[in-house]
Parts: sequence; structure tokens; C-alpha cells
Amino acid sequence: MTQASICTIGDEILIGQIVDTNSSHISKALNSCGVRVTRMLSIGDDHDEIISNLAGELRKNDIVIVTGGLGPTKDDITKAALAELSGASGYRTDERQLEIIHDILSARGLDVLDINIAQASVPETCEVIPNRKGTAPIMVFRFPEERFGHSATLYSLPGVPFEALGALQDVLGDIKAHHGLSDICHRTLMTFGVAESALSKMLEEWEDALPEDMHLAYLPNALTGVRLRLSIYGGNHEDEEARIEAETAKLKDILGDIIYSEEDDTLEHCIGRMLSAAGKTVSAAESCTGGTISAMFTSVPGSSEYYLGSVTSYANSVKTGVLGVPAEIIARHGAVSGECVAAMADGVRRLTGSDYSVATSGIAGPGGGSEEKPVGLVWIGVSSEMGTETYRLVFKNDRKRNIERFASSALDILRKKILKEIKL
Amino acid sequence: MTQASICTIGDEILIGQIVDTNSSHISKALNSCGVRVTRMLSIGDDHDEIISNLAGELRKNDIVIVTGGLGPTKDDITKAALAELSGASGYRTDERQLEIIHDILSARGLDVLDINIAQASVPETCEVIPNRKGTAPIMVFRFPEERFGHSATLYSLPGVPFEALGALQDVLGDIKAHHGLSDICHRTLMTFGVAESALSKMLEEWEDALPEDMHLAYLPNALTGVRLRLSIYGGNHEDEEARIEAETAKLKDILGDIIYSEEDDTLEHCIGRMLSAAGKTVSAAESCTGGTISAMFTSVPGSSEYYLGSVTSYANSVKTGVLGVPAEIIARHGAVSGECVAAMADGVRRLTGSDYSVATSGIAGPGGGSEEKPVGLVWIGVSSEMGTETYRLVFKNDRKRNIERFASSALDILRKKILKEIKL
Repeated sequence: MTQASICTIGDEILIGQIVDTNSSHISKALNSCGVRVTRMLSIGDDHDEIISNLAGELRKNDIVIVTGGLGPTKDDITKAALAELSGASGYRTDERQLEIIHDILSARGLDVLDINIAQASVPETCEVIPNRKGTAPIMVFRFPEERFGHSATLYSLPGVPFEALGALQDVLGDIKAHHGLSDICHRTLMTFGVAESALSKMLEEWEDALPEDMHLAYLPNALTGVRLRLSIYGGNHEDEEARIEAETAKLKDILGDIIYSEEDDTLEHCIGRMLSAAGKTVSAAESCTGGTISAMFTSVPGSSEYYLGSVTSYANSVKTGVLGVPAEIIARHGAVSGECVAAMADGVRRLTGSDYSVATSGIAGPGGGSEEKPVGLVWIGVSSEMGTETYRLVFKNDRKRNIERFASSALDILRKKILKEIKL
Repeated sequence: MTQASICTIGDEILIGQIVDTNSSHISKALNSCGVRVTRMLSIGDDHDEIISNLAGELRKNDIVIVTGGLGPTKDDITKAALAELSGASGYRTDERQLEIIHDILSARGLDVLDINIAQASVPETCEVIPNRKGTAPIMVFRFPEERFGHSATLYSLPGVPFEALGALQDVLGDIKAHHGLSDICHRTLMTFGVAESALSKMLEEWEDALPEDMHLAYLPNALTGVRLRLSIYGGNHEDEEARIEAETAKLKDILGDIIYSEEDDTLEHCIGRMLSAAGKTVSAAESCTGGTISAMFTSVPGSSEYYLGSVTSYANSVKTGVLGVPAEIIARHGAVSGECVAAMADGVRRLTGSDYSVATSGIAGPGGGSEEKPVGLVWIGVSSEMGTETYRLVFKNDRKRNIERFASSALDILRKKILKEIKL
């Protein structure tokens, strides 16, 4: 099986100022076309470290994907290290990339500086895949068998995620053209509302009976729930498809409607599909989630088909003045109450004319809680012409994670309401 | 200087289903107390791979921080690998962690299952730091000099970010108690609105004259702009502080108000500080950014002091019906126009009674553009009693990144308006 390592270069990652999201996208893409990622590695902007680490990865893997360290600025030194690693005696200018550099900068109304032009210069030992999204070209170094004990290819991609991901399809095309690829078989099921350990208990008997070469992984996420991934590596592709399908069917029988999707999915995509199919619309009234639910809805391309809009009523004056929550409700029950979220949900549905609505009011923290209404408390309301229901939940996390949990729980409650009512 | 490696264990990372955010937080914390992170590594849930890779890291580093692979489920095998690596001949139950497990599960109303209890069982070769945020204890393995050529400590943390970060202060305390730490000196300056290559050009002369041991890094981010980080490693602490201070002053002279903060900061925090100091309030009217600006405002603890709320007017009916945008404006100029965002900004300021407001309307893509109004076009409006201004910007990214750029550009425009008007 073709094996790959993904290496990220940049001091900014080692000192924790940025999170490496490229490696995750790249490994997902490699896996999907049958390349097994064995390691991911992040190292600093240090010439000798780059050379020794990349040589080490090339010895152990067929493919090494490098991101980062190609910027126009003085702290980026990957290119010189790759020139040395590949034994280049000089540089050449890649004319296609130079043209792209001119196009990009002139489209942005910027002058083409010497440091921009220098980005089209590459070690003579590499092939170039043009980078259409940015100025640094993708460099491909092919090492013969005698160098690292097997033939190995190194791809150097820019570190800017938008550019790295933009180049990925071209890199995959090159990998497919140069390596004989076997297959990996995965199935993903998305669940929400049941903790990892409780899911594991439900699945214990089935999991113990799984064949040796099959493997179930649990991937908890505050926004999307616990993702279950069933995998087989290697072997005969057709047979594996049928075997993994059979085990997936058993899994679905055990978990029932805890599963909300059979692909790598989100609650907002799932809700969007249901609403589109039924020709229904939705709106939101947010207090403690502060726009997060709205941003989740609108992250889905085409969401304007069913999502009308929202009111973030952070101040009580907006709850009463815009959403029409009776001041008496807030005076008697407080803004964090079932009565208030019911009025918010009804209010935004009336205001926007949507078929469904969802509302939140809670205490995300760090301050502001009381014994009766602790930090982590959220009231969620969902409304449609069939009725308005409210739910009280408590989480025990920090502000960011509480907001995420509030928002995703609200979407799951909305999902279940839609599922029930559209089935009727 | 004390050196550390951070290792993440889990197939879910290698196949790209989750992004490793722990390593970034951990390295930031280690750097801040003078530990230099030399490498980050991600490996799969494979017994032999875990042992050989961790032994390799322990040989090269004083400290190895491991996250992941400690869940209650069957795919997590880190603990057994650590037992073998440390030569443990058996396990013992950590009573403090067992108590926490009971507390956590009963607070959540869950039964304590055998797989939960098993999490309190640890190799007899380790010390335990209790994990108060979750069920898996933090294990500390101290290896004597003869084992890896120098004394080395391995910390095993849970993979769930909330738990890993919750345990971090205790781990740092243990590191400080057991290692003599030197210092790293950093200064961070946040800039917005000028591209990396143009910044580099502005700073070229100054950067060329920097002393050998000082280093400037450029860290572009769509939401927060280009972060500049000036560093010195090692040496005498007091002297370094003065030297880095002097260079930072020069940098500030060159860049002027392109710099919006001198700490690791965000536009929304910066705006919040200005509004709080002036006793002013703000609201937002969002179309294409769909709640993202509101979520950015409310991500700041205490934002209720100055942030009143927002309307996400995704449908035109919400623009006219809730925000009071004249239907004639939309008919004549379209929803994506300067006239429309001006009316949206004025409308939400009137509706909420805020001092300032910001509004967006644009085309995030992937579909929906035209020659005159391409995908990536955004109109931004800002309003106060001093007046309403509109701006037209065009970006050339995918949906997610366009939304981020729209939102952060809107915040930067708002920041400059507040800065100008509050100075008056």
C-alpha cells in the first residue's frame, strides 16, 4: 500500500500561533484515493532540521507532502533546503508561474515586486505544478530508488490553506499518474446526543464480533456529535464493499435515529436537506449563541432557499423591541427561561414569516451565573404552526465550547421536530 | 534550553477527520514558559508505531507531551503502549481519578460503567495528575538518564481538547517544578489590511538591519490580519527585553495605524475595548456574512456591555420588513449595493438604538455572481450619528473564506470609524 507522510514547516506552528489545518485536508484527500498517511510532522524554519527530517520521511514513505515555508518573506527557507536535499546546482524561472504572479497581483491592483518575481524561481531539480491561487509554485521532486531505498516523490505546497487546498487536486492527479494505488474502505455515520462511552456500551457486543481487519473509531465533536468510522485497509475492493456494508447495516439497526446522516455531515446540512425537500423555511432568534446558529445555517451553499434570517437579541431591549417578547415575561421569569425562548421563537417566526424557528437564551460564561441559573445553562425553543416546545440543558464547559454546545443542541432539537412533523 | 516534542495519537487525525488543535495550544503554553518546541508529530493507533515513535522523541527531547488515544473505547491503545515503553509490570487504580469519574458521570446523570472505571487504572510506572474535566487521568512517566541518554519526562494527556487544555496548567506546573527553564522573548503586533508581501517591502530595510539573533515572522490570517512576531531565543533575559523593545518601537514607527494591537489579539476584542472605554454601543445587520460578525462580537466575554444585537437579513423580505430597507432601493440597485448596506446599517442602528452599526451584503458563492456583481463582491456599511459610509471590496476565495474576509474587513472598517470619531 502506498504510504505518505505530511510535513508542515514553520516556526509559527511550533510556537502555537497558528493551527495546522492543511494536514487534515490533505490526509483526507490522500485517504480517499487509497494512500495511507502514516505520520504527520511539524518542524521549524531551520535549514538543517528541514533537510534531516525530510530525508527521514522520504526513507520511510513513498510520498512526502510538504506545506509551508514558501512565502515571499525572509523567514521562509524551505526552497533553499529542498534545493540542497535534491542536489540542485542552480535555479530556473518557471514561466507559467511568473505569468500567474503577474495576473494575481494586477487583479489585486498591486505592483509586482522583486520578491514576488523571485517566487517563480525554482531549483532546477524539480518539476512545477502551477499554483493558480497564489504566487508560490508547487514543486515536485522525484527521487530515484538508489537515493532512499525506494522511489519517492516529494511535493512542496504553499502553507496558506486556501492555496494548499487549491493545489490539492493537481497533486492528487500527479500521484495517481505516478503510483499504483490500492484501496481503503471507510463508512461514516454521524450521531448526536449520546456520549462516546454510552455509544460504546450500546455497540459493545457488535464491536467484539467484528472481523480482525475491521475497525471502528469514535470521533466526538461538539458541533457535529460523535462520528463513527468503520474501516478496512487493503484486500479485495469489491468484497470489502459488501462486507463493510453488512456491518454498517447492523450498526444502523442498533443505533436507530441517533444517527442523523450516513456521510461526513453536519446538522445544518441535514436540516437544510429536509427543509428543501419539504419546501419549508426557517429562522432563528439568538441570545447566548450570539449569531453562531445563523452562521451555521448560512455556511451551507444555497441556504438562502430555506433560511430567511435571524435576530441576535443580545440586549433585552432587542428581545422586547424587535422580537416582541413581553417585558412582563422577562421581569417575571428572566431572559434565561422557557417562557422567554418560547416568545423569542414565536416572535422571530412571526417577524420573518418562516415555517420553523429556533431560539436560545442561556449563560455562556465565564461570569454571570447563579445557583438557580448556573453558567452553562441554556433554554432552547423550537416553533412551528404545530406548536412551540422548550428544552432546558446544562453544560459545564468554557465560553467557546458552551456556545458551540448550545448551538448544536438547538439544531439537533430543531432537526427532531422537523423530522417528526414532516413525517406526519 | 529545555526542548519538547508534542505527539498526537489517533487514526482520526491521520485520515483527516479531525484537525489537531491541541498541539497549537500546548506549544503556545510551553513557549510562554521558556520551553522550545522542536517538533510536532501525529501517529496512528498502532501499538508498535506508538512505542518506536515515542522512544525516538524521548531520545531527542527533554519533554514529550502526548495527547489522545486514552478514550474509553476499544480503538484507544495508548495506555498499553506506554505501559510497555516504561517497563510496567502491572496496573494500579488511581483513587483520586476514580472519585472524579464518579462525580462527573453522576453530575451528567449517567451510570458509571466498567469502561469508565477502567480509565482510573494506570501503569504502576507513572505518576498521576488528576484530570478534573474528564475521565482519563494525566499520566506522567519520568525516564532516568540511562534510558534515553538524558533524563526525560513524558506526559500523556487526553485527546479531547477541552480536557487536554484543562490539564495544561497542572502539566506546566509539573514541568516548572522538574526542569530548569530559560526564557524566550517574543513581541507580537497585529496588523490588518496590508498583504504579507507589501508589509515585507515596507519593512525590508529595517529587517535587513536586525541583529543575528532576532527574527521576524509573518503570520497571515483571514480573520485577524497579518500577525508579526519578533523573537529572540536564549541569552540574558533583562537585556533581551530592552533590545526587543527598541526594535518593536522602530517597527511601530514604520507601520503606524496599520497596527491595531500589540498583543495576540482580534479585531473584535480591539473594538470591544474602544467601545467600552467610550461607553458606546454597536449593532450589526448581516446578509452575506450570515451571523459571523455577530458571533465574532459575542465570542468576547463581557461583550453584552457594548453589543446590543443584530439582524441577519438573509431574505430580502427581512431587509425590508425588519430593517426597513426601502423596497425601491432593492428594486433599483439590488440587495448587493452601497445604497442597500447604508439603509441596513441605518436601519439596525434605529431598531436597536445603538451608537454604531455595521452592515454587509455580498455574494459569498459558489454560485450567484454576475459580471457586474461577481462572486466575492461585498458592500460594507458603517453608521453612527456622525454619518454613514459604504465601501465596496472584492475577494477571490471560496465561500467559507469569502465570508471570513467579508466579516473581518467589515470589523476593520468599523474599527477605523470608531478610532477616528472617538479621537474627535
